[in-house]
Amino acid sequence: MAPTGAKSGQGKKGLLERLDAGEVVIGDGGFVFALEKRGYVKAGPWTPEAAVENPEAVRQLHREFLRAGANVMQTFTFYASDDKLENRGQKVNEAACDIAREVANEGDALVAGGVSQTPSYLSCKSQSEVKGIFRKQLDVFIKKNVDFLIAEYFEHVEEAVWAVEVLKESGKPVAATLCIGTEGDLSGVPPGECAVRLAKAGASVVGVNCHFDPMTCVATVKLMKEGLVAANVKAHLMTQPLAYHTPDCGKQGFIDLPEFPFALEPRIVSRWDIHKYARAAYDLGVRYIGGCCGFEPYHTRAIAEELAPERRFLPPGSEKHGSWGSGLDMHTKPWVRARARRDYWENLKPASGRPYCPSMSKPDAWGVTKGHAELMQQKEATTEQQLKELFSKQSFKSH
Amino acid sequence: MAPTGAKSGQGKKGLLERLDAGEVVIGDGGFVFALEKRGYVKAGPWTPEAAVENPEAVRQLHREFLRAGANVMQTFTFYASDDKLENRGQKVNEAACDIAREVANEGDALVAGGVSQTPSYLSCKSQSEVKGIFRKQLDVFIKKNVDFLIAEYFEHVEEAVWAVEVLKESGKPVAATLCIGTEGDLSGVPPGECAVRLAKAGASVVGVNCHFDPMTCVATVKLMKEGLVAANVKAHLMTQPLAYHTPDCGKQGFIDLPEFPFALEPRIVSRWDIHKYARAAYDLGVRYIGGCCGFEPYHTRAIAEELAPERRFLPPGSEKHGSWGSGLDMHTKPWVRARARRDYWENLKPASGRPYCPSMSKPDAWGVTKGHAELMQQKEATTEQQLKELFSKQSFKSH
Amino acid sequence: MAPTGAKSGQGKKGLLERLDAGEVVIGDGGFVFALEKRGYVKAGPWTPEAAVENPEAVRQLHREFLRAGANVMQTFTFYASDDKLENRGQKVNEAACDIAREVANEGDALVAGGVSQTPSYLSCKSQSEVKGIFRKQLDVFIKKNVDFLIAEYFEHVEEAVWAVEVLKESGKPVAATLCIGTEGDLSGVPPGECAVRLAKAGASVVGVNCHFDPMTCVATVKLMKEGLVAANVKAHLMTQPLAYHTPDCGKQGFIDLPEFPFALEPRIVSRWDIHKYARAAYDLGVRYIGGCCGFEPYHTRAIAEELAPERRFLPPGSEKHGSWGSGLDMHTKPWVRARARRDYWENLKPASGRPYCPSMSKPDAWGVTKGHAELMQQKEATTEQQLKELFSKQSFKSH
Amino acid sequence: MAPTGAKSGQGKKGLLERLDAGEVVIGDGGFVFALEKRGYVKAGPWTPEAAVENPEAVRQLHREFLRAGANVMQTFTFYASDDKLENRGQKVNEAACDIAREVANEGDALVAGGVSQTPSYLSCKSQSEVKGIFRKQLDVFIKKNVDFLIAEYFEHVEEAVWAVEVLKESGKPVAATLCIGTEGDLSGVPPGECAVRLAKAGASVVGVNCHFDPMTCVATVKLMKEGLVAANVKAHLMTQPLAYHTPDCGKQGFIDLPEFPFALEPRIVSRWDIHKYARAAYDLGVRYIGGCCGFEPYHTRAIAEELAPERRFLPPGSEKHGSWGSGLDMHTKPWVRARARRDYWENLKPASGRPYCPSMSKPDAWGVTKGHAELMQQKEATTEQQLKELFSKQSFKSH
Repeated sequence: MAPTGAKSGQGKKGLLERLDAGEVVIGDGGFVFALEKRGYVKAGPWTPEAAVENPEAVRQLHREFLRAGANVMQTFTFYASDDKLENRGQKVNEAACDIAREVANEGDALVAGGVSQTPSYLSCKSQSEVKGIFRKQLDVFIKKNVDFLIAEYFEHVEEAVWAVEVLKESGKPVAATLCIGTEGDLSGVPPGECAVRLAKAGASVVGVNCHFDPMTCVATVKLMKEGLVAANVKAHLMTQPLAYHTPDCGKQGFIDLPEFPFALEPRIVSRWDIHKYARAAYDLGVRYIGGCCGFEPYHTRAIAEELAPERRFLPPGSEKHGSWGSGLDMHTKPWVRARARRDYWENLKPASGRPYCPSMSKPDAWGVTKGHAELMQQKEATTEQQLKELFSKQSFKSH
Repeated sequence: MAPTGAKSGQGKKGLLERLDAGEVVIGDGGFVFALEKRGYVKAGPWTPEAAVENPEAVRQLHREFLRAGANVMQTFTFYASDDKLENRGQKVNEAACDIAREVANEGDALVAGGVSQTPSYLSCKSQSEVKGIFRKQLDVFIKKNVDFLIAEYFEHVEEAVWAVEVLKESGKPVAATLCIGTEGDLSGVPPGECAVRLAKAGASVVGVNCHFDPMTCVATVKLMKEGLVAANVKAHLMTQPLAYHTPDCGKQGFIDLPEFPFALEPRIVSRWDIHKYARAAYDLGVRYIGGCCGFEPYHTRAIAEELAPERRFLPPGSEKHGSWGSGLDMHTKPWVRARARRDYWENLKPASGRPYCPSMSKPDAWGVTKGHAELMQQKEATTEQQLKELFSKQSFKSH
Repeated sequence: MAPTGAKSGQGKKGLLERLDAGEVVIGDGGFVFALEKRGYVKAGPWTPEAAVENPEAVRQLHREFLRAGANVMQTFTFYASDDKLENRGQKVNEAACDIAREVANEGDALVAGGVSQTPSYLSCKSQSEVKGIFRKQLDVFIKKNVDFLIAEYFEHVEEAVWAVEVLKESGKPVAATLCIGTEGDLSGVPPGECAVRLAKAGASVVGVNCHFDPMTCVATVKLMKEGLVAANVKAHLMTQPLAYHTPDCGKQGFIDLPEFPFALEPRIVSRWDIHKYARAAYDLGVRYIGGCCGFEPYHTRAIAEELAPERRFLPPGSEKHGSWGSGLDMHTKPWVRARARRDYWENLKPASGRPYCPSMSKPDAWGVTKGHAELMQQKEATTEQQLKELFSKQSFKSH
Repeated sequence: MAPTGAKSGQGKKGLLERLDAGEVVIGDGGFVFALEKRGYVKAGPWTPEAAVENPEAVRQLHREFLRAGANVMQTFTFYASDDKLENRGQKVNEAACDIAREVANEGDALVAGGVSQTPSYLSCKSQSEVKGIFRKQLDVFIKKNVDFLIAEYFEHVEEAVWAVEVLKESGKPVAATLCIGTEGDLSGVPPGECAVRLAKAGASVVGVNCHFDPMTCVATVKLMKEGLVAANVKAHLMTQPLAYHTPDCGKQGFIDLPEFPFALEPRIVSRWDIHKYARAAYDLGVRYIGGCCGFEPYHTRAIAEELAPERRFLPPGSEKHGSWGSGLDMHTKPWVRARARRDYWENLKPASGRPYCPSMSKPDAWGVTKGHAELMQQKEATTEQQLKELFSKQSFKSH
């Protein structure tokens, strides 16, 4: 077992040291969505080969999150398990670790290696097969000596527990987040019980990430906290929500929304929504507060600005940001200067500019779950014929 | 007079060569808004000192637009006139030119130097004073040998004509765009007449940029085209709209919307909106098709993808983008695979996820125009007392 | 020629006497829509045979409008021309006159006989044929000695002028309203010119009714007023708008909205919208202020309540209505009592309760106008085969 | 004890006879809201003195519901307990019974006498005092020999049980509906348990009325049914929902919505919403299907039309209504004729025409419940000073 953060952590407090001291740890934002918009990730496969192909783009995004106040550089290894990336997985994962470390060293940030749910689990592979996939990823994280590990984006707590069990083998601190809402995981396990299982499996930090909007994630972690308290199990709390409003999501999260992934724009949260989120999370006792898909650096900065009174410092990026709009006091037009104040932005109900669009959608959901033939992993892209069948199913629905 | 694009343009066709041949020239997107979100530009002053302070961030954004298919690298010199930046103006402008050239050389792009409306004009300074400011900026562009020049973001055609007259002194091609809508400039000159005046002053390309959404800009340029035809004056057409939906804008554009600049998220256009825009602009005869505030690289790529049949190539960035959502054919969930088709995205009316918000806003507008005391340039930030007065004026309005 | 209001008007001021004295004349509301909801009119044909079949229902609605403050009882003869009703026309029209007179005699109201546009005109019949139809209706109005006449609901000013010319033969005062918006009539005649033509043809009162929402109608009559002033022609002004919000209507009005006529509910205006309308109309100089489709008695009462300060009395119906919500001061719940005030209701932006619906629609419009085969009058209901063809045309549109 | 429906019921099946036979019994709609719009009821007190003051208006509305297919004429006695109406209560109640009977005799309808929650209960009066109030109303219903009794509009099941116990003394069938949603009554009793308590107290029919929209009411009665099944208690089911969309209601229902009662227009349900409601209620096993506030005769008719296949007849009012819009096949414009079909109306998402308004509201709720001083019954209207205090509390909220 490797000593935690040996060389790399020199001079830096580790994750648990911070959390145990009650410090806020700010997570970074979502890489796949941000890099998709910048042109380096392909929506659909969502794989992170950019770490090898366009390292400067990945590095730049890391730097922006660091500048925004993030204390964690998550290695850009989402969906980088070999069953997704086939044989390139290891090279990509190693490159991602190197970039994360390089940028983390430029500031007060730790490096976190992440694993997430596997197609193999959805295809009903055995526990040992699934664990084998996690272990292969973990080998890279150990070799590259990340500071801690995150098991994230799991729809089923059972698989997340397997991941935690593997990650714990490293001796490094493990955080675990499910992509679930208040209704619980896709097998029907309620959030409170999920939290207890993860903590008992060895996760020092538990919570949720992705799939739901910030306030839904806070509400879900509230249920987790209540479960932990009731079971008298201790764990730190963590939230890494979407930067999209999803009041109309079903149990399966934003992927089922008709707008996913190419028409989510009107749902993007503002920096002021993030202020409310950061405050609500903090007040609940969450201390690892970050973001996921949709989070851009300015969203992360808003967490750091909201919690600046507690933390007693602003992030570097705030050098270019007047808190609560105060930078507008130099604007040419007087009515724009009149927006240079907190209560203006706090109370504004922003218009969509889309009068022909609704404010909520009905999620797709074809009643298909783990183990169903339609969810089995395919090696090939869907064929024309298969797609046609899918399209005709779709057309029975009206959005 | 410097020869057009002498050293730099080696092996590349110039702007007019392309337009005269009927080729599409794709402009880049908005730097101030994109870099504000990334943490390098301060909203309010909106000045481009990042060219000096964080050149890697500026360079990366240029690269992303290039990768997305842009044929123009506009120097990041917005609001970089000395009356805004004081004495740092020249250094910033030179750095911005160098970065733009460096990236332009990596692909098929030209460098454009830009000037925009001056606080001096709004403060009623004389023609010669205002022209002096443009000339100072032009000196840098000549020294750095940009490929062509753009006079952009003018609310008053009178000032834009002065800018064109100065820029023409360089002998380089000049494009000129006003930030106006179908109602015309802020002095009431209709778009058709504006276009004629700009063309007669020497602009080879005329059109609009910023302030309004894509389809409004196309509608405005349609009026410009009709004015040119009626006056029998020739000019190429150009559109560089916002990437925000603004159906509720008044004459003064999106700055007056209550959401400007920190709550525009729900108005952000999708890539599919850009497909429609690019097609409409092309069909109108516009050949310089770009974007302004809110445009991210994926928006620019959507222009290139929509016009790929005409241009017969895709941009490098499309390597990471399945056209019309086709990349989703690999998605795990069948109902997401069913979204891998054009008519799905083309007809989707995306929900805002904000049921407590309206779809349109009433723009602010305090009846203040050029020459009014409240619009005079201030050296100092507005004082607390001044701001209080502004806030109380605001509170009479309800959004 | 019959003497104006001979027997009936005894003791009452006539229409022009009132308007010339600057008094407000409040019109009643829309009968076909109100009676459709009550079960006595069939949407589609919209014919008024209830005057004969269910006179008590028609009488009750008249009474409610009278109680609400209306000074005019329009005979329920909409679409009662013989080319619509065939041979029952005369009997229906006579019964409608009797009911209107009976209720008018119960209060301070005049009886108005109305004619509206004819299918014959749309089918390109000659002027003398069309005038013959109006004359047949006029015969009934003369026999029943109505107090004045209204030519209303004309899409083409040409036909309205013909109607005015016929109605003038009676010697009774004539009011004329087109169902047009700010763009003018369906032949492209602008509102100002329409008003001048109608006044020159002999209409003492001109304006608009139906097809557009209250504020659009006020805006249209503003253009009419400007036209009259410019031509130095005198006429009183009149508005009888829809009680539906129609910001998304095209030139042809609400019939083209996809919601017409069975899903207009979310567009129904509140009493507070009517307060604003009544004030705006009054301030413009309109003195005949009424309503059309969608107006229920409480809408009419709101006109009377808004203008009570000028008129110095409230209508009988206000006995059951606290002005500006003041009746809520007795409500059980304190937060409902807190709504008993003007600024609460004046500023409320009422929610639709329909998050899956948009706020605006694209009007249907198949580019068909007067004279087109598809608009020719049919004696028979559309056949199954014809309907199928229509449905398939429709399905190319998405709402 | 009077024999049930002695003289009056001659030739008619009683309520239970119908329900036991599996027949659908269609309830009427809401009188206070409909008559408020017609000018005969004052919002705030909501008392039914119109039965004495304007009997023809009450009679007409009864007739419209009868014509629309209603099988029940509820006496217009809402809030007619003496603690509300003081000494006029008995006279009003008797008049209301006579009118209901008169119209019921014109068709296949029964007369139902109704009692509802009392201010006395909210003011914490004793069980015997509250029961005394119900008994006083019951005396009138017995004297006038109504066919059955309804205890409706109760927020607390405890008070409803008291009402049922009193009404049962008459020997007539008793139906009981609470104005609750899926969260249960205001004391926290869940719907299933409420239903069991009401049935055990002697109600033959149980369900919900008012306060929530149709589909919420169906969902609530589903919970009631499950409770009854689980407890092995038998009762018929009944729904009389609002005709307003209320997805944003809290536990206390639509009264807390900021739009109550004067700006609910955009929430009014269409006839097509009622088709869906009637079908869903029927499919759940509900056989007493009616409406409450907001229901107009055309809504009631829509219940009868949706269930015409099961009942094998249409109501008289359908003589003036083409089912599913078929009456439009005679419309002049072809694109309106193209709306003469079921799938058009079934799938239409109607626009609000209000782009400046949201689609949902935050309900008011000041945390005040039964027994709180602010809810005690006041004899006097709230004073100016009291209102001012309320207004200032309100202004802390933004809608």
